[in-house]
This record gives sequence, C-alpha cells and structure tokens, in this order.
Amino acid sequence: MPIITHKKLLLNCDMGESLGLWSMGLDEQAMPLIDMANIACGFHASDPLTMNRTVLLAKQSAVKIGAHPSYPDLVGFGRRSMQLRAEEIISLIHYQVGALAGICQAHQLQVSYVKPHGALYNDMMRDQAILKAVMQAIASYDSNLPLMLLAKGDNHAEQQMADALGIKLLFEAFADRAYDDHGLLLSRDIAGAVLDDPQRILDQAMLLATEGKVVSHSGQRLSIQADTLCVHGDNPESLKVLQQLRKQLNTVYNVQ
Amino acid sequence: MPIITHKKLLLNCDMGESLGLWSMGLDEQAMPLIDMANIACGFHASDPLTMNRTVLLAKQSAVKIGAHPSYPDLVGFGRRSMQLRAEEIISLIHYQVGALAGICQAHQLQVSYVKPHGALYNDMMRDQAILKAVMQAIASYDSNLPLMLLAKGDNHAEQQMADALGIKLLFEAFADRAYDDHGLLLSRDIAGAVLDDPQRILDQAMLLATEGKVVSHSGQRLSIQADTLCVHGDNPESLKVLQQLRKQLNTVYNVQ
Amino acid sequence: MPIITHKKLLLNCDMGESLGLWSMGLDEQAMPLIDMANIACGFHASDPLTMNRTVLLAKQSAVKIGAHPSYPDLVGFGRRSMQLRAEEIISLIHYQVGALAGICQAHQLQVSYVKPHGALYNDMMRDQAILKAVMQAIASYDSNLPLMLLAKGDNHAEQQMADALGIKLLFEAFADRAYDDHGLLLSRDIAGAVLDDPQRILDQAMLLATEGKVVSHSGQRLSIQADTLCVHGDNPESLKVLQQLRKQLNTVYNVQ
Amino acid sequence: MPIITHKKLLLNCDMGESLGLWSMGLDEQAMPLIDMANIACGFHASDPLTMNRTVLLAKQSAVKIGAHPSYPDLVGFGRRSMQLRAEEIISLIHYQVGALAGICQAHQLQVSYVKPHGALYNDMMRDQAILKAVMQAIASYDSNLPLMLLAKGDNHAEQQMADALGIKLLFEAFADRAYDDHGLLLSRDIAGAVLDDPQRILDQAMLLATEGKVVSHSGQRLSIQADTLCVHGDNPESLKVLQQLRKQLNTVYNVQ
Repeated sequence: MPIITHKKLLLNCDMGESLGLWSMGLDEQAMPLIDMANIACGFHASDPLTMNRTVLLAKQSAVKIGAHPSYPDLVGFGRRSMQLRAEEIISLIHYQVGALAGICQAHQLQVSYVKPHGALYNDMMRDQAILKAVMQAIASYDSNLPLMLLAKGDNHAEQQMADALGIKLLFEAFADRAYDDHGLLLSRDIAGAVLDDPQRILDQAMLLATEGKVVSHSGQRLSIQADTLCVHGDNPESLKVLQQLRKQLNTVYNVQ
Repeated sequence: MPIITHKKLLLNCDMGESLGLWSMGLDEQAMPLIDMANIACGFHASDPLTMNRTVLLAKQSAVKIGAHPSYPDLVGFGRRSMQLRAEEIISLIHYQVGALAGICQAHQLQVSYVKPHGALYNDMMRDQAILKAVMQAIASYDSNLPLMLLAKGDNHAEQQMADALGIKLLFEAFADRAYDDHGLLLSRDIAGAVLDDPQRILDQAMLLATEGKVVSHSGQRLSIQADTLCVHGDNPESLKVLQQLRKQLNTVYNVQ
Repeated sequence: MPIITHKKLLLNCDMGESLGLWSMGLDEQAMPLIDMANIACGFHASDPLTMNRTVLLAKQSAVKIGAHPSYPDLVGFGRRSMQLRAEEIISLIHYQVGALAGICQAHQLQVSYVKPHGALYNDMMRDQAILKAVMQAIASYDSNLPLMLLAKGDNHAEQQMADALGIKLLFEAFADRAYDDHGLLLSRDIAGAVLDDPQRILDQAMLLATEGKVVSHSGQRLSIQADTLCVHGDNPESLKVLQQLRKQLNTVYNVQ
Repeated sequence: MPIITHKKLLLNCDMGESLGLWSMGLDEQAMPLIDMANIACGFHASDPLTMNRTVLLAKQSAVKIGAHPSYPDLVGFGRRSMQLRAEEIISLIHYQVGALAGICQAHQLQVSYVKPHGALYNDMMRDQAILKAVMQAIASYDSNLPLMLLAKGDNHAEQQMADALGIKLLFEAFADRAYDDHGLLLSRDIAGAVLDDPQRILDQAMLLATEGKVVSHSGQRLSIQADTLCVHGDNPESLKVLQQLRKQLNTVYNVQ
C-alpha cells in the first residue's frame, strides 16, 4: 500500500445531463462512487424534473452538490464558445446556481460549490476577464461557495484573483488527460492527449491521490496540487474505471 | 376622506417582462408606485440580465419581490395552457423561484411571495389538482412564502387546502375586471367584463381599499377579502391610472 | 404463404429524434427496414444538423421522407398538449415542414407527406377544430402532400373534411396496440392496450398487411383500411420485431 | 436633379423581428417604403405566426422576401458570436431559409435572397471559413438565390469565392455608417463611426444611389459598388429618414 503524502482526493463527476426523455450518463450507478456531483442547471442540459431526480440521487449517496452552470446552448451542450459580456456571465451564473439551490432547498439540501461547464470552463481558464466575471458572480452570491477550476503546475494568477475577490478555490486534476512539462493539459490536437488505457488512467489517478504528482507526457514527474479529480460515468467503460478507482482509494484511505 | 374599515391594500404589478432586446412594460416608472413586484423568471419572459435589472429596480423603491413562475413558453408568453404532470409543475416552480432567489441573493434581497403567471394561474384557480401541486411546491420550498391567488366571494376551498399543507395565502382583487354576484370574475366573453374607463377602475380600487367591497356587474355590493390589488404599468394609460390610484391610496392611508 | 387481398402496406417509423449530443433511436439500423421516415423538425426533437444526418440516412435507403411537426416543447418531447389557436398551428406546420424541406432541397430530395407528432397527433384525432387547422396548413402549403392519420374502423369524418379542403390522406394502423370493437385504439388505461409479445405484434401486422384486418380485444375480426403501419426502431427489442416483420412482408410481397 | 450614373439602388430592411407578444420595428409603416425585406427566421427573433404576418405584409407591398438566418440565440438577438462548425452553419441556414420558404409557399411566394444576421454576418465578413460555409449552404440549397453581403472598396475575395461555388452576390452599403479610406466600415469604437444626423445620412444615401460613391471619414471620395442600401424602420426617427429617402429616390428614378 502506498504511503499517503497528500490529503484525501475527492472524486467529482458531471451529473444530471439528461434532458426530458433523452438520457445521458449512468448517474444511478456512478453517484454512489463519487464525492461531488456537478449538476447541470438547464442551460446546457437538464430540466427542472431531471434536476430534482439528480438532487435526490445525490442525497441518497450523501454526495456534495455542485452547480454546473453553462452558456445557454442546449443543441451545442454548452461546448460552443459564446461572446458574452461580463454582466451577462454574472447574471446567468446567479440564475443557474439559484435554480439548483431552489431544487435543493425543497429537499433540505444546499449547493456546496460551483464548477462552470464546457466552453465557459475553458474560456475562464484562458481569459482573465471571463474568470473575473465568474469569480465576481460567486463573490456577490456567496463568498463561501468555492469555485472549482483546473489545477495547473502554477495557479498563482487564479489564486491571486480569488484572494482579491475574497472567494475560495477548489483545484481539480484529470486522470485521463496527459500533462505537459508545465503542468498544463496537453492540447487535444496532440496525439496521446487523452488517455484511454484504463490501467494508465488508474495509475495517474492513484499517483495524484497518494503523492499529488503526475508524470508528464515527456516523462517528468510534476507536482499538481489538486483537491479533487474529475471522473466520468457516462458509459460502461468509464464506470468500470471509476469502480476500480473508488476501490483503490477506499483502500489507501482506509474507508470500509 | 373615506373611513378605512379595511387593512392597507397593497398594489402588486407584473414586472420584468422584457426579454433580451425586446422591451415590455414601463417598469422604471411603475416600480415606485407599487408595493409588490411579480418578477418573471425566464419561462414566459425575462432572462438573467433582465431579472437582475428588475431586482435592482425593486430594491431602489423598496418594493417586495415576488416570483412569477410560468409554464415554459416564451412564444406564447405563458398564456397557453400546457398539460403538465404535478411533479413537473412542482419542479418548475422550485427552479424558477430559486433562480429569482439566486439573483436576489446577489443583492442581499429575498423572494417574499409566489404568484403563478398566466395560464398556470388560471389553471390553478379552476383545477384543484394543479392548485395542490403549486401549494406543494411552496410547502416543500419554504412554507413561510405566501402564495398569491385570486380573491373570490368564497375562498374556503383554497384556504382549506393551504391550511392542510401549512402554507400562507395572499388574496388579490382586480380593479379593472367586473365581478359577478358570486364574487367571481365575469368571463371575458361577456361584454363589460374588462373595465376600461379610468374613473370606474379607480372607484372599484378605492372601494376595495377602503371597505373591502365591490359592486357586481348586476349592481350588488359584495365583500371581497383582498390583501392586494393587481395593477398594470405596461402603457401610458394604465400608468396614469396607477399614478392616480397611488395618490388616492396615500391620502386615505395618510402616507406622505 | 398467405394470399394477399390488400395493397402493399408500407412501414412508417419516427426518425431523427436525437438532439445535439443526446441520442435517441437506432436510426441507422432501422432506416433500411422501413418505407417512410417521419422526421422530427426541431420542435419536439432534432436540430438542423441531426435533421441533415437523418435526411442523408433516408436518402441512402431510398426511404420516403415525411415531416413530423409538433407543438414547441423539447423538454416534454411534444407529448404535452398545448392550447394553441388555429392560426398558430397552421404557421408552426408551415415552418416545420418548410424547415425539413430546406434540408431536403440541399440533397435534391423532397418532403412526401406530413404526420403530426405526439400530442398534436392525438389532439387532431379527438378535436375537429385542430384537425381542420392541420388540414388547412397542408392545403395552403401543398395539397398534394398527404396527411398521415389514424386508421379507425370509420374514417368518414376525416375523409369528408379532407375532401372539402382538397387534400389527400394516408391512414396508419398499429401492430402493437389493441383495437376495440369499433376499430378504435383501446385506451392505454385498459390492461392489454399495448401489446408487448413480439409474436402477437407480428401476427397483427401480417393480418393487416395481407387482409386489412385486425382481431379486436374482445376477439372480433374487423376491417382496418390502412396504407401504412407504424413501427418502432428505438431499442433492440423493437428493432428485432421490425427485422422479422420486414422479412415476412418481403416474402408475401415477393420482394427480393 | 442629379444625373444617375448608377443602377437603381434597392432599399433593404430587417423585418419581422418581433417575438410573440414582444413587438419590434415599425414594420407596417416601413414595408411600403422598401424594396427588400430581410425576414427573421426564428433563431434570433420571430416565431412562425410573426413570420406569417411579416410575409403577408411584404406581399401587400410587393417587396422581395429575403431570409435573415442567424445563430440560435434569442436572448442575445443573434448578436453574440458563437463558435460553430461549418456543417452546423450550413444546416442551420438550410433550416431557416427552408422554414421561411415554407411560410412563403403557403402564400404563393418565394424567398429571393439570403442575408445572414448580426454576429453571423459580421463573422462571415471577417472569417473566410465562415463565409465559405455560408456560401456552400446557399450553393447546395439553390445557387440562384443571391447572398447579400457588405460592399467594401474591394470585394474581390468574396466574388472569387462566390464564382468558385457558382453563387450570386448582392452588395449592400450603409447610409448611416462612416467609411474609411479603404472602403471599409469605420470601427464602431471610433467616434463618428455611426452617423446620426438625418441630413448626412440622406446625403450619403443619395450619393451612393446616384453615383455609387461615398465620402470617407477623412474626406476622400470612394467608389462603393452596391446593389442595395441597408435602411432602418425600427423607430420614428429612422422611419422619417426612410420616408424622405424613398421620396428622393423616387424622384431621381422617376417613380410615381
């Protein structure tokens, strides 16, 4: 058994991405395996009834509920960048986080964090103005609600902005993405950017969980300070990896 | 000056019914004249940025904020009845009230009541199953949040259901609609159902405000127990009536 | 081999009901087995890119393309009745049929018929005013475009209205629904209304195909004059029935 | 009266930009004054019933009908750029042009040209890949349907691409925008980019109409080869300019 030099790494997973009759994700099977559910709020996926079902699923497994706000784009699943003004981004985050909080309140639950979805997530990681709008949205809504964002080799800029606005951050790492030597995700345009070998994904996850490190694409060992690991439960293959990962984490964390 | 035998009648008005570039309602002029703003939540009108502007307007005039949830139908402005299951109605109310509460929270404000919009309002007044779904939505969200509904000559059935579910009611009357001898709104199919003479509208409003009474279409004097009066600020004519009504109410209530 | 006393029964199937990333239906496998594809037009399902893919699939299998217009309700998949005025129904049919025709035109194809979807289909079969609006929509768009509707024991009323408006009808029967003694579909509230035994479905289909008859729920043999049979390809079970049905029909029709 | 050295300049105007109950534009007053109506197709504005009314208005005034397709963004009125793939752009143009053609067909009318709206228009003028997608959409739909785009001092690149794809172009100029010395619209960030003096707008329009020329921001006289001039009828001020322009054009063109 590895010696744990890192705090407990929580597993976060996108959840509640069905829409009306259209089903997406194996939520019922994945929910008991994760710690944090990023729940869609109706702008890239989901609808009020689906959100209600998803919140109840999270409650059954005592999983933390996070709001997963997005650009307004069901057909594009929130993956198409849209040119919005800062005030538009701020208001749509208030709207979506509030909507999920409304569903939660009906079940004596609360939203515990915010993780922007898809293109909004990518845009905030590459554009300081968008990141600032996201952070301002959270600061004005509830400064105790952490923002989840990408753990990189160096997150000083993000931390500095968060400190200035008085909000908290949660850093997430990826087990199925290759990192470059700067601790950035390797561009998807480069071969090998996305890992598909289950054993390699498990290895990267466990190295992050036990030592807070990754081995970069070029073979370098890097520190990645992550609070949580993004996992997937959308098909039988990813679910199988998730089950094994949960088992291994329970072992190293002595969870019965 | 009339002797007031009735508690202070509050003015409620639909607000925030613009959508993106499309403007509706003279909100800036009407807001200072009313007590309660029924704010659209994005399903029949409005969008996150419009909701934010409307909430700020309400804050400036210290007007109570009410959620104005609707069936999901922008093109029909929520005025077309839709056959939804009870659980769908419950979740869409949680979603919309929560969304507005999210915008409010960013400005240290709260939602104070719920008034269903358009076809949902009409459907709940004629169908006990729909009314029950609306009340259950509020009971599970926050039983201290009153539901605003139509004051009729006899509201026992509604009050009994509310009592059973442990929620509060606010009854609203209309100054521009004729009542029948049972204290029900005269059907819009009957000539004279909608009042358009400003003086008659003012007279009906003041009789409700000072004595809690209306004169029915056939000339009978009836009691209508109303907490609030529904007013309109969507065009210069209705705004003028509203201004005069506010002035007269301030006089009888000794507001300076 | 049965003696065929009935014209060739065509198989129609709802197609193109995916939406963005959400997949629905085994369209690639079902398309080669059917004669007529009822293609969703973006109001209850589908989007322009999905429509394009579906039209190309139909082209590959030389399947006739039908427009499948619906009430505007993605979350409810067009299955929730909405109270629309006749002029609203007419315009939304023109819009949706035109949109599909636009996609078709880009591939040198045409829309060949119209079959309303879900609640709009049910509403037109029970409400003459809605049926008239649907027929008027087609009459003003292209009176050579047949309207597909439910084959009942008696379709005189529908035929009379169609004749008066100068449009053509296509009658469809169901292999997986029980009929009452009047040739109407047995209400879904009654046990046994929906057939799930593959052999019984195949038997009902073949009796319709070869003799234009069904055996009612109570055991009576009835004539049902149908041009087409509604089939399903949305899951492996229904696809298997469809494959067997196609095979048996090819045999009786001597198709190689 | 000026000597006309230029072919008749047609007036085009965005039309049908209302949505349900929300009204936009003085379409009834503007329609008789213009030659070409760019009609919204439901993605940035309009709905089937509004499109129907707008098409009927155009018919009454014998105005040419153009499709005005947009990114799918009602809240942003199609003015927010969205990152779409070429195939998505192509299909959404087929869908929208087809939808409008469907409404037209019900009134024995046809779509006569295509003018992309808002952000899609701007994006196609600055990004060759997007322009190519737009042109391919038209080429595959109907190569006789001209694409309307911005007349610049030099439109060789656009013309070359159109020639290669076998489609026709219509060039439009603006009377209320300042031009730089290269015949490009002056950036809106520069003071004076948008003309608001009615007389200057009329002067620029008439110089374009009679000589095919504009005076640039710096005072240079440039050739702008335009087939049509974009005008506005969305408020009383712009309508007044439009009325005067129509009158002056009728005079120089000897229209009674």
